[in-house]
Amino acid sequence: MKNYELKSLGDISTQSRIELHEQLKLTGAEISINELPANISIPFVHKHKENEEIYLVLEGKGTLYIDKEEIEIKKADFFKITPEGERCIKASKTDPIRYICIQVKENSLNGFTQTDGIILENTHAFN
Amino acid sequence: MKNYELKSLGDISTQSRIELHEQLKLTGAEISINELPANISIPFVHKHKENEEIYLVLEGKGTLYIDKEEIEIKKADFFKITPEGERCIKASKTDPIRYICIQVKENSLNGFTQTDGIILENTHAFN
Repeated sequence: MKNYELKSLGDISTQSRIELHEQLKLTGAEISINELPANISIPFVHKHKENEEIYLVLEGKGTLYIDKEEIEIKKADFFKITPEGERCIKASKTDPIRYICIQVKENSLNGFTQTDGIILENTHAFN
Repeated sequence: MKNYELKSLGDISTQSRIELHEQLKLTGAEISINELPANISIPFVHKHKENEEIYLVLEGKGTLYIDKEEIEIKKADFFKITPEGERCIKASKTDPIRYICIQVKENSLNGFTQTDGIILENTHAFN
């Protein structure tokens, strides 16, 4: 059985929502790529039972509503929201916003990078 | 205590590696944004103890080495590698490659979206 799954998504700027969980057979995350047209918001406020969400703004600008606060967001802003955070996102009046949303279970990560990675000293790629 | 952490990263095209775990106080993932200059590879092959890795190619092109196979990768390619996969990435001879790498614990996600999200019917953002 192969140890990877790969998908070419083509021009993501023409797709309003892409969900990767099924396409990549993910087991530790859901990842979506989302676009909101100018002046449009997600149609509801939501929170989570156990998942932390991490958002990466790829293009455009807008507003993050979080627990009654409103924060301006723009390209290259990155934010994490705990399960309890009551959140919504709206694109700016003039520009759409495109962002990645990553859902993971809060407190699920043990080690990472140096503490989870294993360097294979005797294996060489790209000889 | 606030339910979010936010960072503005500015022009990510001028930064060779950005690590978000500490900056966003992540508990379920490590997320890094990486650039390899043209013709440069990660200097070792590696696998993981328990983390699944998901890669999103933001810009450029290159080659994924995975378990002795070589696969051409380019902007808007997305791939998942199981912990056991022996992996390395190299930029193409002519172009750099920029990608996001997300580490999460394999099999850690229970529900997501409809099964983990809770819509707050009586809360309205952006009135």
